[in-house]
Amino acid sequence: MLALYIGNKNYSSWSMRPWVLMRQMGIPFEEVKVRFDSFGAQSVFKQRLHDVSPAGKVPVLVDGDLTIWDSLAIAEYLAEQYPEKHLWPLLAPDRAHARAICAEMHCGFMELRTHCPLNVEAHLPAAGAQVWNEQPGVRDEVQRIIDMWSALLATHGGTLLFGQFTIADAYFAPVCLRLATYALPVPPQIAAYVKRIQALPSVQEWVQDALAEQDFIDFEEPYRERR
Amino acid sequence: MLALYIGNKNYSSWSMRPWVLMRQMGIPFEEVKVRFDSFGAQSVFKQRLHDVSPAGKVPVLVDGDLTIWDSLAIAEYLAEQYPEKHLWPLLAPDRAHARAICAEMHCGFMELRTHCPLNVEAHLPAAGAQVWNEQPGVRDEVQRIIDMWSALLATHGGTLLFGQFTIADAYFAPVCLRLATYALPVPPQIAAYVKRIQALPSVQEWVQDALAEQDFIDFEEPYRERR
Repeated sequence: MLALYIGNKNYSSWSMRPWVLMRQMGIPFEEVKVRFDSFGAQSVFKQRLHDVSPAGKVPVLVDGDLTIWDSLAIAEYLAEQYPEKHLWPLLAPDRAHARAICAEMHCGFMELRTHCPLNVEAHLPAAGAQVWNEQPGVRDEVQRIIDMWSALLATHGGTLLFGQFTIADAYFAPVCLRLATYALPVPPQIAAYVKRIQALPSVQEWVQDALAEQDFIDFEEPYRERR
Repeated sequence: MLALYIGNKNYSSWSMRPWVLMRQMGIPFEEVKVRFDSFGAQSVFKQRLHDVSPAGKVPVLVDGDLTIWDSLAIAEYLAEQYPEKHLWPLLAPDRAHARAICAEMHCGFMELRTHCPLNVEAHLPAAGAQVWNEQPGVRDEVQRIIDMWSALLATHGGTLLFGQFTIADAYFAPVCLRLATYALPVPPQIAAYVKRIQALPSVQEWVQDALAEQDFIDFEEPYRERR
């Protein structure tokens, strides 16, 4: 049985990606949650992770003796292990574009990630409006996301980024939740895509689990003092 | 014919990765160099890149009508297009680990990237010593690299990270050049690996081209006022 190590569901956007991917695609796994206490070297989180992964971060996928850290490497491993599930788009050019946008997400969108951290349970439109007014970098990154998704939706039938659900949708699912939490202004076709992602059974399950956590991690909460 | 858009060879570590990969593996391509003038929205660099790629960064691989931005997506595309060249390791567990360390590089090692920017032509041991003394984050990241490479070299015969040359070596080639430029202290097995990477024909060609550029980009040069 595969084991997926994740952080708090309310906060860990990187954990959410492979979790949603596996759940949505019907890949069975055991979930191992490692709560965020801090990311200092002496934290329980880091100590526990270092027993599993040399990089000391979530997510980590464990398959028997094999440990795979990093969400993108996990996605590629699963795509190889379950070829019949077509985790990447079927056509090579689509697959290349899907990988390009996932890689772009993997190392980019730092302004959005910094100013609008994932907070599934929260609804923070006032914080979002302030960020939108004060952070041109966030506006630029959201525009890039709008351009990227609009082009893909127009090309692939308007439902999911490449028509059928793929790794790319899982990769941008946390971005959809951020857009919703912070109520950032997006055009109708983007708002509709966000709603479709929120309606996926795997995303609904993740959100329900996040709501049930009842855990307030202060260093993940720049805009609130309590839930 | 494939076309690879790259930045200045002296400075662009992300361009170096697919360039070295393709050259080392005998994949023919046309090189298109787009000089760094600045990274502002109105720069010649950004204007030129936006005609090719929506993300506006190098490297970009163009294959006919298909444009692939991001070094990791380019590597995956090439691995699919040239299966006989085995760009990733042959065994699934090794492949998973190779992808994990490439993904770790792709989104990490920010301290090393910030304080020791790629500067192929330069020899900056004094700057390197100062960084080493003042930046614990750099020391931590170099230690992670030492641990990562040492384990892989011990497992796979001690020459390259997975025995034969793979995407993983191409991905860490710029790190090897950084360790050399800044003369950061590493144990003998790591220094020997750095020398093996520097001796690869593809890396030697990249270095010779970088030396020939004679271009001094001030925003890429925190430690010098001229070449």
